[in-house]
Amino acid sequence: TAVHSDQDQEAVALAALRFGLVAVPVVDEQERLLGAVPPQALARILRREHEEDLQRLAGISRDGDTFARGVLEAPLGDRLRRRLPWLVIGLLASSLATLVVAGFEHTLDANVAVAFFVPALVYIAGAIGSQAVSVAVRGLGARRMAIVPLLWRELATGSLIGLALGAIVLAPIWWVFGDAWLALAVALAVLGAGTVSAVTGLALPWGFQRLGFDPALGSGPICTILQDVLSLLIYFAMVTWLLL
Amino acid sequence: TAVHSDQDQEAVALAALRFGLVAVPVVDEQERLLGAVPPQALARILRREHEEDLQRLAGISRDGDTFARGVLEAPLGDRLRRRLPWLVIGLLASSLATLVVAGFEHTLDANVAVAFFVPALVYIAGAIGSQAVSVAVRGLGARRMAIVPLLWRELATGSLIGLALGAIVLAPIWWVFGDAWLALAVALAVLGAGTVSAVTGLALPWGFQRLGFDPALGSGPICTILQDVLSLLIYFAMVTWLLL
Repeated sequence: TAVHSDQDQEAVALAALRFGLVAVPVVDEQERLLGAVPPQALARILRREHEEDLQRLAGISRDGDTFARGVLEAPLGDRLRRRLPWLVIGLLASSLATLVVAGFEHTLDANVAVAFFVPALVYIAGAIGSQAVSVAVRGLGARRMAIVPLLWRELATGSLIGLALGAIVLAPIWWVFGDAWLALAVALAVLGAGTVSAVTGLALPWGFQRLGFDPALGSGPICTILQDVLSLLIYFAMVTWLLL
Repeated sequence: TAVHSDQDQEAVALAALRFGLVAVPVVDEQERLLGAVPPQALARILRREHEEDLQRLAGISRDGDTFARGVLEAPLGDRLRRRLPWLVIGLLASSLATLVVAGFEHTLDANVAVAFFVPALVYIAGAIGSQAVSVAVRGLGARRMAIVPLLWRELATGSLIGLALGAIVLAPIWWVFGDAWLALAVALAVLGAGTVSAVTGLALPWGFQRLGFDPALGSGPICTILQDVLSLLIYFAMVTWLLL
């Protein structure tokens, strides 16, 4: 077992894990031995990939040398420079969610209780989405996989999760707010949000990987906002259909 | 350099990284050599900690052997069993956010535009919070650190991030919705959400670690909902103060 000199460092470390190697031999295109990646370097690669995933999933920009200094101890200017960019992009993207809700102003005017469930819906869409992203990032790793079978499975997972959570909220909302149609609209929106968030949470990291980026970028603000916006659209569509 | 036989496996792997060791000697309480952790085991520990962090941050339950099978390829029942529990807890906790919004029904009735900014606010609180959690999880690692200086720094980071993002939204909201006080209320809520989310995003993982749990549990639904609820309370307080 050997790796080629042009392979990704994560692939090298994963090869060592898979085959239980202490060091990984590196060969060139003619399969001539160039040298070996020693165990200390493998450990550093694994730790670095760990940190990169954590930071990318949270939308924290890369440092020149993530390993040299803990982010917890980094100076204030450094922290802001690494944390603000994704937040600004997310903030701009989140204006889409604002426009969606504003677009349904008349629905809200007709029944203000529709607004009560917006934070919980956005929360649950984000939670299901970040599970899907995390599973995708961990599962895709440095491998290239066919997307279609994975998507079907994630679609099934997301819709069953949405169905379970929707079933849970139905009776309590009906009982507390005394509106069966509103309860049904929320339940259907949770079902829709689960399906949509799971599928986008897998498809975006896969797409980023296909384009040659780190799949963890798929968890960025665009992905979350997309899930929020789609979930809100489903919710307001249900409300408009069932309540008005 | 050696580790004691009762130390956490992550601490062992971090010791190997810090001192550039191929294998880590293990000693008992009398400093007698018991053996060594070989490089393949160190690599497996690092990879497993990586996976555990990704899954815990996303609220995915632990498998008996996370390493044996990729979550992407796990059977459907398995996926549901590992992903539903945290989502159900989160769904129950998110009813708190619903009750907060419902508690301000009269505010919404008086000015329905207040509802427009709820999804974006919940989004930005969550995004800042998950950055703080990720930094905390990566920074705390297996170490025990004094919380007070870290909290002050995160407080400064969070409030400066909130200030920057709040400043960005002020003029556009004023311009698009033609309401200076509403724009100010949203901007102040973003400032408050940034501060609160950054501080809780650090404090909760630290607290979980102190209680002997994995700090990544601090990112669970309770933490996110807490950030959502606090941000909503700040927002409605600002709206009540400035608009009514």
